[in-house]
Amino acid sequence: MPELRQNLLTREWVIIAKERARRPEEFKSKKEKKELPEYKKECPFCPGNEKMTPYESFTIQEKKGWKVRVIPNKFPALASEGKRDRHIEGIHRFMSGVGIHEVIIESPLHNLTTALMPVEDVRNILVAYRERYLKILKDERIEMIIIFKNHGESAGTSLEHPHSQLIGTPLVPTMIRYRNEEAMRYFDDTGECVGCKIIKEELTARKRIVWESEYFVAFIPYGAYSPFHTWLFPRRHVSSFGSILDKELEDLASVLKTVLAKLYHGLDDPDFNYCIRSIPSDIGQMDYLHWYISIIPRLTRTAGFELGSGMFINTSVPEESAGFLREMNIPY
Amino acid sequence: MPELRQNLLTREWVIIAKERARRPEEFKSKKEKKELPEYKKECPFCPGNEKMTPYESFTIQEKKGWKVRVIPNKFPALASEGKRDRHIEGIHRFMSGVGIHEVIIESPLHNLTTALMPVEDVRNILVAYRERYLKILKDERIEMIIIFKNHGESAGTSLEHPHSQLIGTPLVPTMIRYRNEEAMRYFDDTGECVGCKIIKEELTARKRIVWESEYFVAFIPYGAYSPFHTWLFPRRHVSSFGSILDKELEDLASVLKTVLAKLYHGLDDPDFNYCIRSIPSDIGQMDYLHWYISIIPRLTRTAGFELGSGMFINTSVPEESAGFLREMNIPY
Repeated sequence: MPELRQNLLTREWVIIAKERARRPEEFKSKKEKKELPEYKKECPFCPGNEKMTPYESFTIQEKKGWKVRVIPNKFPALASEGKRDRHIEGIHRFMSGVGIHEVIIESPLHNLTTALMPVEDVRNILVAYRERYLKILKDERIEMIIIFKNHGESAGTSLEHPHSQLIGTPLVPTMIRYRNEEAMRYFDDTGECVGCKIIKEELTARKRIVWESEYFVAFIPYGAYSPFHTWLFPRRHVSSFGSILDKELEDLASVLKTVLAKLYHGLDDPDFNYCIRSIPSDIGQMDYLHWYISIIPRLTRTAGFELGSGMFINTSVPEESAGFLREMNIPY
Repeated sequence: MPELRQNLLTREWVIIAKERARRPEEFKSKKEKKELPEYKKECPFCPGNEKMTPYESFTIQEKKGWKVRVIPNKFPALASEGKRDRHIEGIHRFMSGVGIHEVIIESPLHNLTTALMPVEDVRNILVAYRERYLKILKDERIEMIIIFKNHGESAGTSLEHPHSQLIGTPLVPTMIRYRNEEAMRYFDDTGECVGCKIIKEELTARKRIVWESEYFVAFIPYGAYSPFHTWLFPRRHVSSFGSILDKELEDLASVLKTVLAKLYHGLDDPDFNYCIRSIPSDIGQMDYLHWYISIIPRLTRTAGFELGSGMFINTSVPEESAGFLREMNIPY
């Protein structure tokens, strides 16, 4: 019989379709493998083509050239110039679409991907994330910063060159408010941060752990929305990604690389998204909010039921997927 | 500059990416056109193959054979037999996956689609929806009934034979609770049903109307989440789809067919989902809840930003898309 599980963090229920569930290895990507070149003349993100992109807001430079470049998105979803203006006309509320939309070019190499990068390179990407996060936090127009990655077509990108993005929005999205409120209610009811509680339970149960390190724990949540949906939680209770310490950042680089490499080797380079779930800009350290990273392999499609109910049907069993990833050896 | 608009019904904000917006005709489906046969020997939904599917829970029969068949899903997301059991183990809450999962086979013809059906056939589908909705409402294990359609691969189906689905869940999904609460707050603040208010405003503005009839209004919402996202609202304030009257149902058949035909001819048979947004089973007629149908063409992909923020970036302008559909003539 299928099972319904509550995702404690969001309070949303998920259908774990046990009978329809596929074995972990059945989720292997079926996309055609393309051998990509290290350099592509026409790629705007490849070295030598810097003039094809807007000016840099941040760069990590080495003797041989840049390692990471952060640039404004050439086709931004939100405009960086302009005032944050709210308008009300009858029942309609609207505002100027100001914000920040940046692209983090993760490597000079066209064909590299996080899973195959030296840990040092992943660290550089995280340094760029933190740098831009802390800088944009000071922009008074910005209420929320979302850092995310789209890898592969099912994940919403057709650009091959490894990159991620940052969008700063001039308001706090409704979903973020709802989730923070649920975390606050959990804290009010139990006196504990729900994130801290979940980590503690996962480390005791040990059924869904994918990887752990000194400062981070990676696991598949009990109420995972979709196959191989994975969370990376800092052990230390801290609300904002911007507060990550150097030693934690160093450690996170290795954890992120390891988990993505397990997915890469285990499922043949599946398309995926990840995003950093941090707090709104105007919120400081809160006893009830815990930042984390959510990795979402795009192995299935949402359909009418998900749109109609907001609920997900997960056709995998979290414990099985976690076991598969835990045992997946990756070359170093 | 892009614009942020609030979707009044859900209180969620949407980025209308005006500069990145494509012209309505640019959203035309690029999928390869397949000529489908009227009958396919191996299709379990084609007449003559009734034995390949479970027993019917409802049929509309004519002299020549059945017009619509409702059957239990052979691979259900929720099991129809069994008790609704809740369990709490430590921090984990779970329950038995009981519920209803049915398939509505919409026509005996393998290659028909709602957009091309005689209105009479669409009426039969709606009759089946109402029939099953009212019947399942009496199942005490069921808290919410979602009726939905997946058309095409991007919408989550690979089955060609025209069909839709019904899932009855043993709990009320969190998203539904949130949305109903927002509607209640709107009512408490203004004394009006937000649905009634939106219809009134759309009929005055006339900028986003796609089609209107005696009992229904079809329009693209001011804060549409995605290109050609369309709402069909009954003019009469009524909370439950199950309360639809015969004359309204007759009228809805023609409106649904018309809107889907405009999409079919205007965008070359795009993949789409639709769902009926009704109320939880334990809620009766409420002054603040208004049922409706949401049609969501699957023309773009959600990526890391949407997953991270819960916000959508709409790369079309609702007024332009509505104008395009409004003026699209369809053969009758």
